[in-house]
Amino acid sequence: MDYIIQSLLDTDFYKFTMGQVVFKEFRDVHVRYALRFRTKGVNLVDHIDIDELRYQLDLVRHFRFNNSDLHYLRGTNEYGERMFSEDYLDFLRNLELPDYTLSDSLDLEFRGPWSTTIYWETYALSIISELYYRGLLSKMSDFERDVIFAQGKVRLDDKIKKLRTRPGLTFSDFGTRRRFSRAWQEYIVKTLAEELPISQFLGTSNVQIAMDYGLVPMGTSAHEMYMGISGIMHGSDDEIRRSHNEVLKLWYKHYGKGLSIALTDTYGSDFFFRDMNREQAELWRGLRQDSGNPYIFGEKAIRFYNGYDIDPATKLIVFSDGLDVVTMINLYDTFTGRIQVTDGWGTNLTNDLGLPPISMVVKLIESNGHGTVKFSDNLAKAIGKPEDIERFKKIFGYDSTYSASCTY
Amino acid sequence: MDYIIQSLLDTDFYKFTMGQVVFKEFRDVHVRYALRFRTKGVNLVDHIDIDELRYQLDLVRHFRFNNSDLHYLRGTNEYGERMFSEDYLDFLRNLELPDYTLSDSLDLEFRGPWSTTIYWETYALSIISELYYRGLLSKMSDFERDVIFAQGKVRLDDKIKKLRTRPGLTFSDFGTRRRFSRAWQEYIVKTLAEELPISQFLGTSNVQIAMDYGLVPMGTSAHEMYMGISGIMHGSDDEIRRSHNEVLKLWYKHYGKGLSIALTDTYGSDFFFRDMNREQAELWRGLRQDSGNPYIFGEKAIRFYNGYDIDPATKLIVFSDGLDVVTMINLYDTFTGRIQVTDGWGTNLTNDLGLPPISMVVKLIESNGHGTVKFSDNLAKAIGKPEDIERFKKIFGYDSTYSASCTY
Repeated sequence: MDYIIQSLLDTDFYKFTMGQVVFKEFRDVHVRYALRFRTKGVNLVDHIDIDELRYQLDLVRHFRFNNSDLHYLRGTNEYGERMFSEDYLDFLRNLELPDYTLSDSLDLEFRGPWSTTIYWETYALSIISELYYRGLLSKMSDFERDVIFAQGKVRLDDKIKKLRTRPGLTFSDFGTRRRFSRAWQEYIVKTLAEELPISQFLGTSNVQIAMDYGLVPMGTSAHEMYMGISGIMHGSDDEIRRSHNEVLKLWYKHYGKGLSIALTDTYGSDFFFRDMNREQAELWRGLRQDSGNPYIFGEKAIRFYNGYDIDPATKLIVFSDGLDVVTMINLYDTFTGRIQVTDGWGTNLTNDLGLPPISMVVKLIESNGHGTVKFSDNLAKAIGKPEDIERFKKIFGYDSTYSASCTY
Repeated sequence: MDYIIQSLLDTDFYKFTMGQVVFKEFRDVHVRYALRFRTKGVNLVDHIDIDELRYQLDLVRHFRFNNSDLHYLRGTNEYGERMFSEDYLDFLRNLELPDYTLSDSLDLEFRGPWSTTIYWETYALSIISELYYRGLLSKMSDFERDVIFAQGKVRLDDKIKKLRTRPGLTFSDFGTRRRFSRAWQEYIVKTLAEELPISQFLGTSNVQIAMDYGLVPMGTSAHEMYMGISGIMHGSDDEIRRSHNEVLKLWYKHYGKGLSIALTDTYGSDFFFRDMNREQAELWRGLRQDSGNPYIFGEKAIRFYNGYDIDPATKLIVFSDGLDVVTMINLYDTFTGRIQVTDGWGTNLTNDLGLPPISMVVKLIESNGHGTVKFSDNLAKAIGKPEDIERFKKIFGYDSTYSASCTY
């Protein structure tokens, strides 16, 4: 009964918005997702029992979307009416997650049609994260464990007090994938919903928790859209370069203004700002910043909009890169009145109990038989085989050498 | 924290289907609902603390429909796509239940626009029922209380075993209003969903429990539709008589085939069968039987369809009058192959722990300034002022004298 994932809605909302586009456009494209563990000096195998991991992953494969899950998704209207179509909801009703491969050294991969493999990322990460921290807790005394939870509450209290000094600062929980535990994420979200006004704590990306607490399910889109489509449009340099803008077009075609927040750093934000055209800049509500220096990014975004004679104050930046409350307040103070700002707060929100954080991702590494690439505005977050990275650097004119190790 | 009603979805599904029609068609019609307690020899005041009742009713007035409640209703598609319109969902979002009047002798009434008073019935009944049984429990020893719950489980086990002898017998939980307690209803429904196949236990009328367990929210419609509209179309005998068929027309206009199960006994089923015309008999999926002798009713229904050259085997009867498992099995054995049968199982399902049942209703007694009438196929269930009952008997040609006291 010790399930980590207890419902297929225990995932990020954008898995469904992306999942629907993939289902409708690229259902049978073969892809490969792989776990990448980025924390130096930690060997996951020392902390996670492979059989337990296998057990938890297998449990997820036995879950199905139930009637109420589908009611909830069908009834989602925060980003536009009927955003999920009946054929997609039928597909979800019958979805069984594909099998995975897991080695004793904890190489974890998911291969198969993009339309079914896409869902594994968040479940797998939350399971690994929770098993890792369970492992740490199991080596502690009862009192040491008590202190961990006490520390988590004290830190949450400190966050809330600081946030109350900036009532105009808004944010959402984006912390499903690297949370301390399912129960702790739920506790955090419930507490924030009780302690802060709805005008400040806007919602959570976790669909199950949003449903359970009547909150808004929050989401944008992820790098995998760009990476997957680069493999599908793979060919000449020009075709690969064009695939970036195709993602923007496709997304807008499906969701219109409601979900028009563009992720900017897959091939570096400099390329992004060259690639997004005036019409798109006008139509899209805003941008998501997920790597590199957020202050520099904010200034670039303001210049970008000014360059098109668009008032930056009508546009929104969603900051989501390893935020903590001090950074959130600084960003808010820096940009308020100049461009709209909100925060997608992840690991430091849902996994801040005094234990060292770990950094890991599950990334789309191959699409349609081609290796994929992501640079970010921070090369420590780059994904891709060296030869692919070199080719994509030329294609996208990526010349930054900035690299800073990831805490999360 | 001892709330009986913990969510505004803790009600019967048909409150929303009826509520929407009322909202769209008769929003401002003034109505009066009143509690009628029908169990001889029991004085509610001896068992229920008026202040506690007031406290629980006041708590309900503080609840609001949250985002997820509305997602769920918006996503309901079991009876047709988009059955709840956005203007109705907006209305629910802002709904605050109107005030009530409650005397020390426990006369409880709800007066105001039909569109907001309609929701009180089920909340009020479940609260009174749970307070009554809490009162009985409070006078027992710990062991006596243990035995109550043990008895409830033994009886449920017996029901399930008997139902397994008839895998083709289908039923739903209709027992919200007179349940032993909220928690006990949830336990019953959860257990049935685990122990019986979904082809036999079809769902529950309780929207919150349906949502929590991924079940189908079940519902038809209630007497109050006929009663309310009789007051709105009040005038000549002919106008009052016509109001019955207007309800059928209105309901079909709003919900079409999906929800086309007609309640048959408001003015007696003999009148009903005279009033439903051939086209309606063909269009509507079936009938609900809620009073009188169900075997006689079933034979009448078969003759009714045969009279229109409609194959009764294509039509459905929903039995819902004080069912127990023996009656359900007898009805199933009697009618299988001749006409389709399913059961809406109420008090004997959700309140069968060995304590004496109580019989009570909250009924619409006045609409648009006129007293309303309901005969049922059992005069012990009749509602109305004597002079109104006499007039309506003539209008509807009601000549039955059958009366049998109600257990529930």
